[in-house]
Amino acid sequence: MKWSETEKKAAQVALQRAKERETGTLLKEIRSKASAIAELDEVWHLHELLSAKRHKIDGKYDYRNSVLISVLVWLVKQRWLHLYEL
Amino acid sequence: MKWSETEKKAAQVALQRAKERETGTLLKEIRSKASAIAELDEVWHLHELLSAKRHKIDGKYDYRNSVLISVLVWLVKQRWLHLYEL
Repeated sequence: MKWSETEKKAAQVALQRAKERETGTLLKEIRSKASAIAELDEVWHLHELLSAKRHKIDGKYDYRNSVLISVLVWLVKQRWLHLYEL
Repeated sequence: MKWSETEKKAAQVALQRAKERETGTLLKEIRSKASAIAELDEVWHLHELLSAKRHKIDGKYDYRNSVLISVLVWLVKQRWLHLYEL
């Protein structure tokens, strides 16, 4: 599939928007969980949560054109993007 | 070196006390750092900090008699225990 420059640009913008949304949600979650931490076990649970999130987020926001379509479809399914934003 | 039951008990108590102190300090640090998090990079820095702490704390509090003396000496050096508590 050949993307026009406008399409590429729109896709990048949508991806960036989804990343900001997911990041914002993660920041809130981390602040909330961390403020309630009272035991060492909970620190390690937070560590495991962050390991999982890092793996997921680092892997997902892939800006290469060859995979952009599938990333965008996935983000819509996960509700980080609306179809009308594409 | 042969430990008496009283010595063993005292060493365990000292180790537990040091662990509680170090854990308490870690909990405060995590809550403080996490409450100030505003960007994704800072989340990943927190993740790295937790990885390092986990490795350090899990490895340090070793209750086997064979290594207890060296663990206690190390905890005094690191100021998690006072000499007079031993």
